[in-house]
Amino acid sequence: MGVHPHSDTDSALALDLSRPATELTAALVDCESVSGDEARLADAVEAALRRYPNLSVQRLGNVVLARTELCLPRRVALAGHLDTVPIADNLPSRIADGRLYGCGTSDMKAGVALQLRAAHLVGTGELTPVTDLTWIFYDCEEIEAARNGLNLLSQTRPELLQADLAIVLEPTNGLVEGGCQGTMRAQVTLAGRRSHAARSWLGVNAIHLAAPVLQRLADYPAREVEVDGLTYREGLNAVGITGGVAGNVVPDECTVMVNYRFAPDRTEAQAEAHLREVFDGFELRVTDSAPSARPGLDQPLAKQAVAALAGALPGGEVLAKLGWTDVARFAALGVPALNYGPGDPNLAHKVDESVELAVIERSERALLTFLTSSG
Amino acid sequence: MGVHPHSDTDSALALDLSRPATELTAALVDCESVSGDEARLADAVEAALRRYPNLSVQRLGNVVLARTELCLPRRVALAGHLDTVPIADNLPSRIADGRLYGCGTSDMKAGVALQLRAAHLVGTGELTPVTDLTWIFYDCEEIEAARNGLNLLSQTRPELLQADLAIVLEPTNGLVEGGCQGTMRAQVTLAGRRSHAARSWLGVNAIHLAAPVLQRLADYPAREVEVDGLTYREGLNAVGITGGVAGNVVPDECTVMVNYRFAPDRTEAQAEAHLREVFDGFELRVTDSAPSARPGLDQPLAKQAVAALAGALPGGEVLAKLGWTDVARFAALGVPALNYGPGDPNLAHKVDESVELAVIERSERALLTFLTSSG
Repeated sequence: MGVHPHSDTDSALALDLSRPATELTAALVDCESVSGDEARLADAVEAALRRYPNLSVQRLGNVVLARTELCLPRRVALAGHLDTVPIADNLPSRIADGRLYGCGTSDMKAGVALQLRAAHLVGTGELTPVTDLTWIFYDCEEIEAARNGLNLLSQTRPELLQADLAIVLEPTNGLVEGGCQGTMRAQVTLAGRRSHAARSWLGVNAIHLAAPVLQRLADYPAREVEVDGLTYREGLNAVGITGGVAGNVVPDECTVMVNYRFAPDRTEAQAEAHLREVFDGFELRVTDSAPSARPGLDQPLAKQAVAALAGALPGGEVLAKLGWTDVARFAALGVPALNYGPGDPNLAHKVDESVELAVIERSERALLTFLTSSG
Repeated sequence: MGVHPHSDTDSALALDLSRPATELTAALVDCESVSGDEARLADAVEAALRRYPNLSVQRLGNVVLARTELCLPRRVALAGHLDTVPIADNLPSRIADGRLYGCGTSDMKAGVALQLRAAHLVGTGELTPVTDLTWIFYDCEEIEAARNGLNLLSQTRPELLQADLAIVLEPTNGLVEGGCQGTMRAQVTLAGRRSHAARSWLGVNAIHLAAPVLQRLADYPAREVEVDGLTYREGLNAVGITGGVAGNVVPDECTVMVNYRFAPDRTEAQAEAHLREVFDGFELRVTDSAPSARPGLDQPLAKQAVAALAGALPGGEVLAKLGWTDVARFAALGVPALNYGPGDPNLAHKVDESVELAVIERSERALLTFLTSSG
């Protein structure tokens, strides 16, 4: 299902950034961009941004960057990924009941539309920002971290990510979500001794040995932790289990894959130490992890962002971000970062993924207010 | 790796049944016959048997049958499968330390060699049997029951299996093993509710729900049961477990596959009832099963067989057969059946599979004694 941007049969996609954010979202959604196949959409974003002479545009692989160079004392980065999870027979997009349905509507082309709208308004001079701005559109967020465009950029060109505040437009339902929890995956391996199932007393059943591992998980009391005024809720879960050699064999190995989501008061090293404590007596190997990010809402610019973005909501709420997001990549570079996007995180990756049109409109207004408010 | 018996490049294999059983075993082993590819070996067996005018030979698919029609009051069937598990770089056969090594040596071409030796001696008149004899060489024993040649024969031509005693020459290390335990596989399914691992309290982790299932297996007290004077030892084991959707998802399903080996005092229905009792409160589905077979050693002909075969051993032992074997197919037709073969069951299906040459020789003598002893 790949889109091959340079083949003769594909015409280039022209994005009209002057259209309302809701229409722009639909246009973005209708350009398939499953992870690894973002080139055509990145081409369209790059071409659209290059029309504005006051934006400095760079293309690095399928990452597109745009910057203002207004010599303002502070800089805000607006980041979003162009890719989606695989299409699930849910394209092209369609509107029903005030919602736009389709793959990527929520996660996160509605957010990308807000980025592009802000670029258009700044590019045309309709909007005068109070800070310099950096736009980052990147690829491969939905797949392994080694291919994540923002991750690669943070390793190879960290200066391009530098800012006083980063807003990652991942779906938050138009709420401000601060920081993010860390995530660590580890493998607990049980070793038995293989035998024929007809003479099972000659073996040691590795699957049976997993009983106490699963019991510890079932009994695990997950923490709720307050960090910088936000409440994080942890979780420790088996996300996979495998064991078995054949239908007539006592298996000699069973593996439980666990996923620990940890609050921003723990580093990755502390998270690993905790896992080793929970699974004391068992063989545990960490397979991958990503750090948490403190919400950083004590910073002045972050406070202004919260006032403008959360203030647009009835309750003016700021919530802890529980899922891991790329805000952690900014946090690792010392850039305070928050999540703010019109998509609904509970609909991400679902066949019936959708986004509420009114939330796109309300979020756009709030974002533009922040970018132009003097604080 | 298939052997295509009718292609121009393959020459037919000629088996010389006048050679000692040890040499004959090596010749059989060196003719690859992985399940499904038995045709070339079946051709060779058929051709060898057709040389004896006093044997009535039939070919049904890759099953080869031979019978004497001496109008003797009783009939003994000698059954063995021609197929092996896949080759594991362990062919051709080789002799070392008094053992013949190679795929199928133990399971069960040494047994097939004894069948063929008996056929040769009866066919040439060197041996005068005291019962009529039926030889059954069949295919696909190592794979699913639906393809098992003896199983198919028992369904389509059960009269060909009729006998007063069947000896299945599966590996028993030259001991007499009576009856066989039944085997039943069942799937215990745990149903949870899927959620993102970052918000795991919205889901129900199906893998965690498997903890008590594994604990019951770990705690299970397996029965030891005496049936017709032989002691059977049961076993209940997880032979497989699977669960998990993705590394960031609380899984909604986990499946534990269990294998119950049950003594011949239980029918399949009773075995299933027992499993439902053990896993009371859980969803259980029986996926396949095969009945047990009572040893039937109270029958006169079986007693004579035990005297001749077990009597050849220092201890004169008769043991309960713990693994499931095709003796159950005879038992289901009312034919008492026992296992007796020179192979070593503990080496079956192993890369270093081998058979002790002295056991082949000793087992052959004992078998011939039984076939000629008037009782």
